[in-house]
Amino acid sequence: MRNTLAYGAKSAKSPLAPFSFQRRESGPHDVAIDIKFCGICHSDIHQARDEWGGSIFPMVPGHEIAGVVTKVGSAVSKYKVGDRVGVGCFVDSCRKCSSCEAGLEQYCDGGMTGTYNGLERDGKTPTYGGYSNHIVVDENYVLKIPANLPLDKAAPLLCAGITLYSPLRHWKCGPGKKVAIVGLGGLGHMGVKLASAMGADVTVLSQTLKKRDDGLRMGAKDFYATSDETTFKKLQKSFDLIINTVSADLDLNSYLGLLKIDGQMVLVGVPEKGMVIHPFPLIMGRRSLAGSLIGGIKETQEMLDFCGKHEIACEIEKIPITKVNDAYERVLRSDVRYRFVIDMASLT
Amino acid sequence: MRNTLAYGAKSAKSPLAPFSFQRRESGPHDVAIDIKFCGICHSDIHQARDEWGGSIFPMVPGHEIAGVVTKVGSAVSKYKVGDRVGVGCFVDSCRKCSSCEAGLEQYCDGGMTGTYNGLERDGKTPTYGGYSNHIVVDENYVLKIPANLPLDKAAPLLCAGITLYSPLRHWKCGPGKKVAIVGLGGLGHMGVKLASAMGADVTVLSQTLKKRDDGLRMGAKDFYATSDETTFKKLQKSFDLIINTVSADLDLNSYLGLLKIDGQMVLVGVPEKGMVIHPFPLIMGRRSLAGSLIGGIKETQEMLDFCGKHEIACEIEKIPITKVNDAYERVLRSDVRYRFVIDMASLT
Repeated sequence: MRNTLAYGAKSAKSPLAPFSFQRRESGPHDVAIDIKFCGICHSDIHQARDEWGGSIFPMVPGHEIAGVVTKVGSAVSKYKVGDRVGVGCFVDSCRKCSSCEAGLEQYCDGGMTGTYNGLERDGKTPTYGGYSNHIVVDENYVLKIPANLPLDKAAPLLCAGITLYSPLRHWKCGPGKKVAIVGLGGLGHMGVKLASAMGADVTVLSQTLKKRDDGLRMGAKDFYATSDETTFKKLQKSFDLIINTVSADLDLNSYLGLLKIDGQMVLVGVPEKGMVIHPFPLIMGRRSLAGSLIGGIKETQEMLDFCGKHEIACEIEKIPITKVNDAYERVLRSDVRYRFVIDMASLT
Repeated sequence: MRNTLAYGAKSAKSPLAPFSFQRRESGPHDVAIDIKFCGICHSDIHQARDEWGGSIFPMVPGHEIAGVVTKVGSAVSKYKVGDRVGVGCFVDSCRKCSSCEAGLEQYCDGGMTGTYNGLERDGKTPTYGGYSNHIVVDENYVLKIPANLPLDKAAPLLCAGITLYSPLRHWKCGPGKKVAIVGLGGLGHMGVKLASAMGADVTVLSQTLKKRDDGLRMGAKDFYATSDETTFKKLQKSFDLIINTVSADLDLNSYLGLLKIDGQMVLVGVPEKGMVIHPFPLIMGRRSLAGSLIGGIKETQEMLDFCGKHEIACEIEKIPITKVNDAYERVLRSDVRYRFVIDMASLT
C-alpha cells in the first residue's frame, strides 16, 4: 500500500479539503502514475455534492488525469517508466459483456468502474480519483498522450474531449455535414475544435454572442445567440447533427426544429430534470433525440491520436489545488475559459 | 365538376352527417376513382374534432382509400380504367424540394397536400377525403393494390400499413433483430405482421394479455403485459428497435430502458401532450428516441407489393357509413379488432 495525498470531500455538504488514503501496490498488470494535472469536470461537482444520488464518501473526484508512468507491473506490455499517459472516467469494466467486447466499456453491462465514486470489481473497494498525487491503473485502462500535446492542456481530453469526439464520429460528422454545438464551455469548445478538424461546417449556438470571437477562432463558421428569438427562425431545418453540451434546462423542442429531415440531436450534458419533448418535431422530420456517454478505451486513444495529429488541446485555466472550491463556484457560474486544470505540483 | 356524396363534419362539435360537394373534373394527369372502401384512422377523429388545431371545415375525413379506376386523363401512363388502386394520406406535394426529390414527400418542405383537411397547391381549394363515393387524384399520388389483396382489407395499408413499414425499414428491421411493438391496435397489428414477415424476432408490449392469442397468430414470438411491473425488469436491454404506436401518455423512460445499447425507439402514434424524457436512459446506452410519419409514394408502393408477396392485410371490422359516429366512439375505447373500414356501397 502506498500513501496518497489528495483533496477530498467527507460528505455532500463539506468543501474539498486535504485528505490522504492508501492506494494498492501496483500488481503485475498495473501502471503506477505520478499525476501531473487533473481537469475539473462539471460532473465532479454533481457527484461531490451527491446531486445524482448514491455518492460514496469520502470522495476524491477527478477523471481527467494526465501524468507520467513511474512503475509498471511484470506483465505490462503497453507502457514503460517515463511514458506520458492519461486516465479518463473509468479504470476497469467486466471485460466480458458484449459492450466490453465491442470496445464500448462505458456501457458495460456490469457497470464500468468509475475512476472515482465507484467500486473496484471486487464490489467493495472504493475508487479515488485524480485530485491526488498518484494513481495505480490496469494498463488496459491507461491511454498514451501524444508527444506534441502538453500534459496540462491534454488532461481534459480524457473526459471533455472523448465526450464530444465519440458522438461526432458515431453520427458521422465530416465534410459536407452541418453540425451545431450548443454551448461553448468545457465540452462545447472541444466539440467546435474536433468537428471542424473532422471537416464539418460548424455553428455554435450560445446564449449570447460574448464568446463569438473565441468560437470562430476555434473553427466555427457561424455563431448565433439563442437568446435572440430570430435565431430559431433563421436556422430552421439547418443541421444534420446537433450536439447539446448544456446541462441547464433548455426548450429542446425549438432545437429539434433546427434539424434537417433525418437529423439527430445528441445530449452529452446531463440535465438534472426530465425534459418535456413534444412528439411533433420528431415525427414531422424523422428526427432523433439521442444521448452519448464518453467513449471506450480504443476510441479514447483514437481521439488522443487525432488531437495529436491536428494539434488540438483544451483551452485551460491552471489553478493550484487550494483553489479547487473557488473553481467549483466559478464552474457553476460558467466563469471559466474553458476548463480548470489543477496543477498537482501544488499538492504537498 | 362532379357531385360527390360523402359524410362530413360541419364543425369540431358536430357529428359526421351526409354531405355533398363538388370534385374537380379529372385533368390530363388525373385518375378518377370509385371509392369502394375507406379505413377509419384515429387521426380522422383528432382532425374532425380539431384536437390538433387548424382544422378546415366542412371536413370529409378519410385517407385509407381503396377503389377502382373509372377514368384516366390523356397524359396518364401508370393506370387504366378498372385498375384496383389506393390513395393514402396525401394527394400532392411541391415535387421540387429535397424531400420530394428523395421520395420523402411526407416531409415536403412546402408541406404535403393532405388527402383531406388540406389545401391544394393553389393554397385555397380545400381537399376532401375518402368518406365519399369517388375521388380525383394526380396519378403520381395513386398506388396500385396487388391483385391478391382484397380491397377492404387493403384500404388501411395506405396509412396504418405504411406508418409501420417505413420505420421498420428505415431502422433496419430484419433477421437477427429483436423488435418490440408497443400497442396492438390498428397500427400495432400491422407492425407485428410486417416486422415478422421481414424476419425479425417480434415481441408485443400491450397493456394486458387480452390480445395475446391474436398477437402470436400474427407472428409475434412473445407477448408481455405492460401493466405487469415485472415486464420492465425482465426485458431490460432486450430490443434493437421499439415502435411505439400508442398515442396515450406512457412513461417512455421505462420503455427506453428496454432498448439495447444503440437501440432506437420510434414514435408513430402522436401523444397529445409533451412527454417527459429523462436524459439518463438515452445517455447511458447511446439510445435514440425518434419519430416517423407515414412514408413516401415509392415506399408505399413497395409496402403494398411486400404485403401482396407475403399475403399481409389488415384485420378489419366492416361497417356501413351510417355507423361512422359509433365507430369513432369505439375507436376511442380501443374497441375494434383491428381497424374499422367503411363499405362505401352503403353511401347512397
